[in-house]
Amino acid sequence: MDIELGENQYGKAETRLVRVDRGADAHTITDLNVTTTLAGELTATHLTGDNSGVLPTDTQKNTVYAFARDGVGEIEDFALRLARHFVDTTPTITRARVRIEQYAWDRIAATGHSFARAAGTRTATACCDGDGAWIVSGVSDLVVLNTTGSEFHGFHVDEYTTLPEARDRILATAVTALWRHRSTDARDWAASFAGARERLLTAFADTHSLSLQQTLHAMGERVLAGADDLAEIRLTLPNKHHFLVDLAPFGMDNPGEVFFAADRPYGLIEGTVRRADAPDAGLAWW
Amino acid sequence: MDIELGENQYGKAETRLVRVDRGADAHTITDLNVTTTLAGELTATHLTGDNSGVLPTDTQKNTVYAFARDGVGEIEDFALRLARHFVDTTPTITRARVRIEQYAWDRIAATGHSFARAAGTRTATACCDGDGAWIVSGVSDLVVLNTTGSEFHGFHVDEYTTLPEARDRILATAVTALWRHRSTDARDWAASFAGARERLLTAFADTHSLSLQQTLHAMGERVLAGADDLAEIRLTLPNKHHFLVDLAPFGMDNPGEVFFAADRPYGLIEGTVRRADAPDAGLAWW
Amino acid sequence: MDIELGENQYGKAETRLVRVDRGADAHTITDLNVTTTLAGELTATHLTGDNSGVLPTDTQKNTVYAFARDGVGEIEDFALRLARHFVDTTPTITRARVRIEQYAWDRIAATGHSFARAAGTRTATACCDGDGAWIVSGVSDLVVLNTTGSEFHGFHVDEYTTLPEARDRILATAVTALWRHRSTDARDWAASFAGARERLLTAFADTHSLSLQQTLHAMGERVLAGADDLAEIRLTLPNKHHFLVDLAPFGMDNPGEVFFAADRPYGLIEGTVRRADAPDAGLAWW
Amino acid sequence: MDIELGENQYGKAETRLVRVDRGADAHTITDLNVTTTLAGELTATHLTGDNSGVLPTDTQKNTVYAFARDGVGEIEDFALRLARHFVDTTPTITRARVRIEQYAWDRIAATGHSFARAAGTRTATACCDGDGAWIVSGVSDLVVLNTTGSEFHGFHVDEYTTLPEARDRILATAVTALWRHRSTDARDWAASFAGARERLLTAFADTHSLSLQQTLHAMGERVLAGADDLAEIRLTLPNKHHFLVDLAPFGMDNPGEVFFAADRPYGLIEGTVRRADAPDAGLAWW
Repeated sequence: MDIELGENQYGKAETRLVRVDRGADAHTITDLNVTTTLAGELTATHLTGDNSGVLPTDTQKNTVYAFARDGVGEIEDFALRLARHFVDTTPTITRARVRIEQYAWDRIAATGHSFARAAGTRTATACCDGDGAWIVSGVSDLVVLNTTGSEFHGFHVDEYTTLPEARDRILATAVTALWRHRSTDARDWAASFAGARERLLTAFADTHSLSLQQTLHAMGERVLAGADDLAEIRLTLPNKHHFLVDLAPFGMDNPGEVFFAADRPYGLIEGTVRRADAPDAGLAWW
Repeated sequence: MDIELGENQYGKAETRLVRVDRGADAHTITDLNVTTTLAGELTATHLTGDNSGVLPTDTQKNTVYAFARDGVGEIEDFALRLARHFVDTTPTITRARVRIEQYAWDRIAATGHSFARAAGTRTATACCDGDGAWIVSGVSDLVVLNTTGSEFHGFHVDEYTTLPEARDRILATAVTALWRHRSTDARDWAASFAGARERLLTAFADTHSLSLQQTLHAMGERVLAGADDLAEIRLTLPNKHHFLVDLAPFGMDNPGEVFFAADRPYGLIEGTVRRADAPDAGLAWW
Repeated sequence: MDIELGENQYGKAETRLVRVDRGADAHTITDLNVTTTLAGELTATHLTGDNSGVLPTDTQKNTVYAFARDGVGEIEDFALRLARHFVDTTPTITRARVRIEQYAWDRIAATGHSFARAAGTRTATACCDGDGAWIVSGVSDLVVLNTTGSEFHGFHVDEYTTLPEARDRILATAVTALWRHRSTDARDWAASFAGARERLLTAFADTHSLSLQQTLHAMGERVLAGADDLAEIRLTLPNKHHFLVDLAPFGMDNPGEVFFAADRPYGLIEGTVRRADAPDAGLAWW
Repeated sequence: MDIELGENQYGKAETRLVRVDRGADAHTITDLNVTTTLAGELTATHLTGDNSGVLPTDTQKNTVYAFARDGVGEIEDFALRLARHFVDTTPTITRARVRIEQYAWDRIAATGHSFARAAGTRTATACCDGDGAWIVSGVSDLVVLNTTGSEFHGFHVDEYTTLPEARDRILATAVTALWRHRSTDARDWAASFAGARERLLTAFADTHSLSLQQTLHAMGERVLAGADDLAEIRLTLPNKHHFLVDLAPFGMDNPGEVFFAADRPYGLIEGTVRRADAPDAGLAWW
């Protein structure tokens, strides 16, 4: 039969790791969700069940925990360290990807060892093969809303178009952003993340928006403009619609005050902003 | 047939309301999820489909939006205003309950009209009948963690017990708390909520815990002790287990540093703390 | 301080148990989610952290697994066996509740050991104390829809009512039903469940509905009428609204063909149907 | 600034459409979740907010509903019809993708108009540009389990490997499969889907598995072998681990009977199987 194995990969998804660093004055916690993915010469296990080239996903999980014993540090570094390990030490594995979500915690003032979960998730992905390595940082679940400064009009109208033009609407979205670094050279990843996140928020807030696409582009451009080492950013912005409620049946106007926050359907705007001289993406987006 | 209709109720669940107040200097947003529930003389619709006593759930939704036109204010007031309306104006309805979840938003500094979602949910429930009214305030999705200061030992041991005693463990939970007010008299509900939430956090953090039950009681007692108008508090605390990973197979110790955060199963601790002289709860917990 | 401990309970939630019975001809699987809850004399752990009366939730989980070694049988029996064990063997525990969800699987024809998940969940809860025991069986996630045979009109109209009368609408709901047995005497629980589920489906389908309340009552009555040992049934029926889409802007009519299935808000209809001579419910609904 | 717009796309996600066909003898329902995605010359809206080339996502939703008025038919046909419409009628749009999930319903025997939701979701995606069109069909949420016939041993062992070899384990997964058709020529899509789904189930069941990868390949090969028009299949198989519970502390053995069904982490096996002579995939996987 002329049927063959194509691209394939495997790994351990969602290993939940919490590391505690017990400083003399205060503890810190690192709360992670780690997904490892490996690819390489894995034909045998697919065709015959010969697993001699398969590093068990259970081992991948163990490796995540064992590496955490030495400290996690920034998630970009931890992801890269893990990804390189898998490629360097497993004969069949020629590519590895490690994706990490880091959950945010605030300190509770009363002690040095108490924390409360905060909103928003920081992410990092490291990919590597025998030749190179790539790091993509990001944020997800960053839900933002402008109560004004957003319009949408002048759009293409066809026979199925009933949407009225909007001169002042609520604009709300849940930002997923992924930005690719030029290199994996050591740097202050935490500061890099904080800066990018801040620029995302600020650009969302201070851009007078004629479309969510325009806001997306402004956010992406702002992030790149603020850090030379960033080559490219990908943004996924669901348009979380807030519809003005018609109160006329009750003898009331509604001057932009009372809204229905809808679930589905929702607009979904996706786009990339990049430097013209960005280096080749390699496996960054694998 | 000797089969009869028993207790019954109906309403509109999860009406998503966002209200914008457009101040000269800055906007504010109130982001709510409102569930209305009515009960009374509703036998006819159940037995014969005679709906003359049924206020449609669609009307309940409309009422939520229409009432928001005049301003929402604190959710305790808004819930009570709605609950009273349904009882006062619908002939068949003798009881109403309005439950509100309020989602937290932080300001984005760049403008007066930009916001980012924060963690944690504030809740309020108002119940009323022809005689009285009751208000319960609360918080949900308040996820907290102590990296130390928690022990668990000296427990009852039977033939199925394998749990080792713990002298220093992570204690983590997602707090759902509901506190009943002595009366519905007007007050600064926002300050009341902020105080109760702060006391929950502080008591969680500074209680040296020998069991999650002890922490629960300390949290409840702290909330009540800080506000005379609170009669009772109910706490639901899932024990979000964090298990120390055994790194011995890799030649490593693990001195309280590397943990696996488990999903299921989880402990579930529920308890009530109240004042001995608390007034009758009436319909508060309906 | 006049602050005291009130009602309290604790347990292990969502212990995921899969039991395989390896028959000579074919295997069977029992796929359960078990939640145990205990109450009794637990003041010490709340006030002082003295855990000598606390059977660890970890032990409760172990007990679930250990009891499964002898076979699970019907979930009503398994829940009761566990609940009685906790009350009988733990000195401080005076009440126990065991709630079980059982997930449905169909056989894949090719072998005697292969299965595919089916829709719908069967549930059972056993409660007991030193005096008695109670069993409630049920179903959840049973999503049903009628494309016709549903009307809603003649309802109470107030100033906030805009809903048009409906003479032919889609009626859809996700049934959660809990029926209380008169006794815990041994019986064919599987047949009892299958009969109740079938009557729920049939009554939903063949009742010409003037309100979801009427349908609820018809479903409850049908279940009770079909089995003398059932004393009471509680139904929770979200009204999953399907709105006819207005196609007039596109020059089209819409004779009951094209609908928008909405998420939120939704109606929520809850009611109880019972026999006039039902025995006291005791702890059945604890 | 040398920052430029890269790839971008937008659309309406999760338009929930239910269509009723009212036959003389019995009704049928088609329950869909439709996501439309468009790409083309959209630079202006990103850079300046000039929306003259933007077909509103609201219009895309309207189009889904309007097209449903003429009948939906098989989801492959409906997706293609919509995708072609967007490319053919919107001047700026050069590519369109329409993804549809179809939820399964069984008939309730009592009437011709009553239905109960069944498990599993059928999917179809049509992509087109000015030159061609591609259709990918699939299934998701197909949860399957073998109680025996699965081994895992002979794997690569490194210093972090602790997994014991398994000679008889439970194998469970939630199948997501996407199969690409050679062409978009008209055919009996429902029969094609039913056949592919059946072959997936049968291959999962009757393959004696030495690794989930081997099972994946067997499933993919079986699907392709059974239908000449299928060029390629992509499978995503989470390994839903079922761990044998250690009952030794309770003096019991556990001969493959009592299992803990774990949530996270889970293995994740992904692979492609294709015909050597498969035509170019074009935009099929866009």
